[in-house]
Amino acid sequence: MSDILARLADVLEQRKQAEPDSSYVASLYDKGLDAILKKIGEEATETVMAAKDGVQEKIIYETADLWFHCMVLLAQQGLRPEDVLQELARRFGLSGIEEKASRKD
Amino acid sequence: MSDILARLADVLEQRKQAEPDSSYVASLYDKGLDAILKKIGEEATETVMAAKDGVQEKIIYETADLWFHCMVLLAQQGLRPEDVLQELARRFGLSGIEEKASRKD
Amino acid sequence: MSDILARLADVLEQRKQAEPDSSYVASLYDKGLDAILKKIGEEATETVMAAKDGVQEKIIYETADLWFHCMVLLAQQGLRPEDVLQELARRFGLSGIEEKASRKD
Amino acid sequence: MSDILARLADVLEQRKQAEPDSSYVASLYDKGLDAILKKIGEEATETVMAAKDGVQEKIIYETADLWFHCMVLLAQQGLRPEDVLQELARRFGLSGIEEKASRKD
Repeated sequence: MSDILARLADVLEQRKQAEPDSSYVASLYDKGLDAILKKIGEEATETVMAAKDGVQEKIIYETADLWFHCMVLLAQQGLRPEDVLQELARRFGLSGIEEKASRKD
Repeated sequence: MSDILARLADVLEQRKQAEPDSSYVASLYDKGLDAILKKIGEEATETVMAAKDGVQEKIIYETADLWFHCMVLLAQQGLRPEDVLQELARRFGLSGIEEKASRKD
Repeated sequence: MSDILARLADVLEQRKQAEPDSSYVASLYDKGLDAILKKIGEEATETVMAAKDGVQEKIIYETADLWFHCMVLLAQQGLRPEDVLQELARRFGLSGIEEKASRKD
Repeated sequence: MSDILARLADVLEQRKQAEPDSSYVASLYDKGLDAILKKIGEEATETVMAAKDGVQEKIIYETADLWFHCMVLLAQQGLRPEDVLQELARRFGLSGIEEKASRKD
């Protein structure tokens, strides 16, 4: 379970080589940053609507959509989900090694 | 690195017992669902703004904020980040065991 | 200039009688509330992106898109833009007659 | 009723001269563009939540909040609500004179 984000990030990295019409992710890269960000706004709204509906399946599904498009953004920007996880670990003192890796500024 | 979401979920679960004024998360639980969802909308917007600014540090920081508030929503709804990861794994054929666990519908 | 919102609301009202495939608005009514709300989330994000780009034409265009979809929501809910304008007038003490028309509760 | 947006825009223009701690709008101008955009994202989310709750009063209230913060954005960018209304009129053929004023591009 634990490596899913890392493996998904690898898939997203590979898709950078794909033709725009060969995959959804490749088409998003081709359209560019604004298309990715528009999806993040849209999926955040859908997560909110799913939560208002109170249907657990929908909340899981829409949150997965939201995190997925955040990961497309990270990939497009040369970042990795591990960067986000490390930031969360740092804030909550959840990690040993990671905690010592201070932020880059 | 890999267990950070699970460990953060444990922390969020523990905070359900905390007094509202003892932690930020406890105060969000106390305010209820709408307060959590409002933060998701806000943090999604901030992620979009950070990406438009093109500053990697800010993108990491705001995505962490967005994922964090999604995790507060999951906890408040009795869900776990593993549910979201499993949904992502299912979509992308990233998992062995998880893949077999079909969706509940 | 001043009656544009009222006239647009009249158009939106008429479209309730139209076939779903005859107009964009009729198709939104047919898809229902969630489809309208998804557009509001999307257009709010596009307004934010236009403002970050700092291009006045785009800000006007995306704000028009956002207000338009808010008006579709109002129509779908049996409300009018005048209700929103009256609320704004009430807050800012901008009106004579309208100010006296107290809120309905 | 019809001039409320124009009169509100005048008020927002005047607040540009005010001290940041003298009014909410003046404090938003002082914080700058990102603070205004963050509010637009937040109020769009609240409009969506109000609509999911199906309470007319809340929909009116939150839509007013959303339009208000859009107007603060317009003012901060040197634009007027009339620019947005004219764009809507142009799209829907709702106006005489305005219709002839073609878009600048």
